[in-house]
Amino acid sequence: MAESMKGLKRTHRCGELSEKNIGETVTAMGWVQKNRNKGGIVFVDLRDRSGILQIVFEGEENAVVIEKAAKLRSEFVIAVVGKVEARSGAVNENLATGGIEVRARRLRILSESETPPFPIEENSKTKEELRLKYRYLDLRRPDLQRNLMMRSRVATLTRQFLSEEGFLEIETPILGKSTPEGARDYLVPSRIHPGSFYGLPQSPQLFKQLLMCSGYDRYFQIAKCFRDEDLRADRQPEFTQIDMELSFVDVDDVIDVNEGLLAKLFKEVMDIEVTLPIQRMTWQEAMDRYGSDKPDTRFGMELVNVTENVKDSEFVVFKSAVENGGTVRGINAKGQGAMPRKKIDKLVDFAKSYGAKGLAYAAIQEDGTVKSSFAKFMTEEEMQDLIQAMSGEPGDLLLFAADINKVVWDVLGNLRLEIARQMEILDKDEYKFLWVTEFPLLEWSDEQNRFLAMHHPFTMPMEEDWQYIDSDPGRVRAKAYDIVLNGNEIGGGSIRIHQNDIQEKMFEVLGFTKEQAHSQFGFLLDAFKYGVPPHAGLAYGLDRLVMLMAKEESIRDVMAFPKIKDASCLMTEAPGQVDEKQLHELGLEIYKLEK
Amino acid sequence: MAESMKGLKRTHRCGELSEKNIGETVTAMGWVQKNRNKGGIVFVDLRDRSGILQIVFEGEENAVVIEKAAKLRSEFVIAVVGKVEARSGAVNENLATGGIEVRARRLRILSESETPPFPIEENSKTKEELRLKYRYLDLRRPDLQRNLMMRSRVATLTRQFLSEEGFLEIETPILGKSTPEGARDYLVPSRIHPGSFYGLPQSPQLFKQLLMCSGYDRYFQIAKCFRDEDLRADRQPEFTQIDMELSFVDVDDVIDVNEGLLAKLFKEVMDIEVTLPIQRMTWQEAMDRYGSDKPDTRFGMELVNVTENVKDSEFVVFKSAVENGGTVRGINAKGQGAMPRKKIDKLVDFAKSYGAKGLAYAAIQEDGTVKSSFAKFMTEEEMQDLIQAMSGEPGDLLLFAADINKVVWDVLGNLRLEIARQMEILDKDEYKFLWVTEFPLLEWSDEQNRFLAMHHPFTMPMEEDWQYIDSDPGRVRAKAYDIVLNGNEIGGGSIRIHQNDIQEKMFEVLGFTKEQAHSQFGFLLDAFKYGVPPHAGLAYGLDRLVMLMAKEESIRDVMAFPKIKDASCLMTEAPGQVDEKQLHELGLEIYKLEK
Repeated sequence: MAESMKGLKRTHRCGELSEKNIGETVTAMGWVQKNRNKGGIVFVDLRDRSGILQIVFEGEENAVVIEKAAKLRSEFVIAVVGKVEARSGAVNENLATGGIEVRARRLRILSESETPPFPIEENSKTKEELRLKYRYLDLRRPDLQRNLMMRSRVATLTRQFLSEEGFLEIETPILGKSTPEGARDYLVPSRIHPGSFYGLPQSPQLFKQLLMCSGYDRYFQIAKCFRDEDLRADRQPEFTQIDMELSFVDVDDVIDVNEGLLAKLFKEVMDIEVTLPIQRMTWQEAMDRYGSDKPDTRFGMELVNVTENVKDSEFVVFKSAVENGGTVRGINAKGQGAMPRKKIDKLVDFAKSYGAKGLAYAAIQEDGTVKSSFAKFMTEEEMQDLIQAMSGEPGDLLLFAADINKVVWDVLGNLRLEIARQMEILDKDEYKFLWVTEFPLLEWSDEQNRFLAMHHPFTMPMEEDWQYIDSDPGRVRAKAYDIVLNGNEIGGGSIRIHQNDIQEKMFEVLGFTKEQAHSQFGFLLDAFKYGVPPHAGLAYGLDRLVMLMAKEESIRDVMAFPKIKDASCLMTEAPGQVDEKQLHELGLEIYKLEK
Repeated sequence: MAESMKGLKRTHRCGELSEKNIGETVTAMGWVQKNRNKGGIVFVDLRDRSGILQIVFEGEENAVVIEKAAKLRSEFVIAVVGKVEARSGAVNENLATGGIEVRARRLRILSESETPPFPIEENSKTKEELRLKYRYLDLRRPDLQRNLMMRSRVATLTRQFLSEEGFLEIETPILGKSTPEGARDYLVPSRIHPGSFYGLPQSPQLFKQLLMCSGYDRYFQIAKCFRDEDLRADRQPEFTQIDMELSFVDVDDVIDVNEGLLAKLFKEVMDIEVTLPIQRMTWQEAMDRYGSDKPDTRFGMELVNVTENVKDSEFVVFKSAVENGGTVRGINAKGQGAMPRKKIDKLVDFAKSYGAKGLAYAAIQEDGTVKSSFAKFMTEEEMQDLIQAMSGEPGDLLLFAADINKVVWDVLGNLRLEIARQMEILDKDEYKFLWVTEFPLLEWSDEQNRFLAMHHPFTMPMEEDWQYIDSDPGRVRAKAYDIVLNGNEIGGGSIRIHQNDIQEKMFEVLGFTKEQAHSQFGFLLDAFKYGVPPHAGLAYGLDRLVMLMAKEESIRDVMAFPKIKDASCLMTEAPGQVDEKQLHELGLEIYKLEK
């Protein structure tokens, strides 16, 4: 039976009380974490989002209340009135309220509870599936509560900072137009226009550029975005972007604002000083040194290009790679020279999973001798030259990949991370930021036999490269930039094309006919006829940013109601069936393969 | 040809400059509002979101620049470098920057412009359809820019206030579960589960109640909501709510927080002091006095129940209404006694459009005689008694409706507003707030032959009325409240049921079988088994609130990219066609009536 809270008013949250309140009569409300009956004295741990408070029920005059308290069970919601006192038993150093307790004289049971299907506790060992089915209980766990409170704080601070920097938050539509370019859109059938569909936005890209055309100068939005993709561990059908766009700016202006934002967030949420300015590196340098456009710069183990050193050797793997226009590069896993053969074989398999045909290694023993998969194809002199190029020392393990650049980078970039994980040299408390700049404008797609925009079709080419757009499109770099944190791309953006002629050329290079460009982006091209300011933008993945700040492994742990891999919600059982009648109103029917 | 802004950095927005900057060299960028060539001196009005700045191009040494400036046309985007000087010509009192001008020595044309299809000016007379097609140009107009800046500020202040009050902003899903109850959901077909659909949320109602179950204590969100309804003038398929929910509170707590919020918004955005506490009125009183649950209390003209005065008269309209359980009520349109017969006839038609069978009137002439549609059925004494009950004086027009209460209220409530509009007594600068409380829990639906929840099925009944839930359900009042501003409902909410037994009874009264209740709200009912705090909430329609603050007539004027009545977007042409292939991936096909 639920009692009402009539006549009672909460005076404090549980975790807000401390020694300062000793002597005060307070009213606290929350959930019973546990209760113990010690020789007629009942101790209750009362929990709310702010923390845990010990309540004591004791004394002859309180017999009725004590009896009631003794019957409390986990997750009952109660209200207690009592006096704050110094804790009678041992002080609990683990609790903020560990020095006090509330000696209760009134108790109301606001809501009873059945036994929950799993215990409400930190670092739950309960299977995630069960927790997601009962997400409303899972969300009571203090670690998830801390994550969602952190997320709310990150959003609040972001809005505060950007508002102070002159950004306006402007809402753009969720019911938009579907475009075939890029990832798959979620569709929404129209009832008023049967056979027509809205598309849910993958980002507010076109709208924010239009807002710049309209003179809003600085826009931001914490925007829901949608992609109907097959889900990976850290993907969700809907996700949240911190999205911004600025007029009358160049790269440095965008970077300035965002360094200010990141410094504020990390200072105020985590008390971490971000060293400014954040290091910048061109895409080319990032690939050459780390084999990745989002390098984890918390550690070295950089790639070394040894093509020149090995190109004349008799080792056919190296030689043929070079002859086919590829390169040979290596990394030096310091101190791993004694790695057992089995473990090296696993690294070879790992490399193959990233497209390598194999992985050449040379383990320098403590006595200076070399165990190597390819020594027999090299002269002693060639091997020593190679070791020197790799700064190899006794005890080191050298690993080499030989292929076209794309494969070599991918293999060694990932191998570098894998070995760092194995060596446990990644410091979880270190946050290393990096700007990666000057991305290629285009990347070739073998599948589609055409160039695709690496960023998107509105990205500005670098002026000095534009001359190559016809003769050597792959050489043209873009005014694009990503912000990388510990090997994760947390945001990215670019200067946009604001000239109609360059924009039309871009569509041509991307293989759009005039008609295609017009039918998909006509309103943007039209807008560009009427005076467009130079503009640029950037967007962060909020889910991933908060995940990294909360040191979680999955973005599901920083979202209130996430979906699982098949894009369903275990709690609400969405998606679900709907009435035939409603489908017919939409002019649709479910397609049956037997037809 | 677009020039680059390389080497230039904007120092100020146009409207940020004033007499204080005289003598400084500044760089301004923006759109050409207009330019005039006066005997070799070129004056350009430069516009950005902050205002308009006069630029002067003059002097022999500037011949090349002047020639370039003379060729500028409206909406060209330019950058100018020059010195701020006191204005050489007449000071323009209408402009914040009216006392200064910038004497330019450099000019770059960042983007040219074709002639826009309509002029960029305040209070545009251009047809809305054309403006919406070119919304990116329409949004350049200063009135729309002020509206969107105000909207951004309202959102920012709301978030700031609620954060300080301990609310967490928590995002709830857009891809949710569709429920048949209430208005029509927008559906999103699932590709991974063909034949299944997500529903876009009409509000985050269930999720925010679950967050209270989960102990988040105070939640808010500025949330996108969706309803697939036939659109009226002030409806949009997607709209925005300021949505909140609080635990361990009763009505007064919710009202307190929200009075603080409204006072802050109106003070900081409009410099208007909201008198606190805001007046409260029960639903019954609002209906009796104003014939409306959202009365405009900026003026009187209250309804008077004259049933007792006329029930014995020979006027069959009055008599039969009373006999059928109805009432007779009137309003006194002060000073309208000389209204011409034609105008009165129009009021009769107006009344009929709200369901009245007719409208009885009595016009008291200046000489005290009465012109009336029903005098012949009344004795002189009865008429005088009626006039006295209505506080009728020479020059007044008395209007009466006789029917069941619902019709009488609706007719006179709307008539009262119509006459006030005709009399032009509504002060646009007055903002009169009102809480309407104690709404009926249920309302009878003739159409469905059952009771419907007036608010929603989770609204808490008033304790003292719960005893009538079986014997006289219509008598049970709810702990529900609306906040009304100048006759507009800007927000509403309720205390929620947190007891499983009351919630189950509610579903029973609403005609749900146990199975129906479980299949639609099962996860909420399940959650209620595990300890639920007393909780309550409120939601504002942000679009309408900002519309009223901006003194606009349509919510389209406070949204960046609104849709028109048929739920389409004239700019992007959404909704649109999609590939057959994509539909088949979703397991759908377009239903053809010929089949």
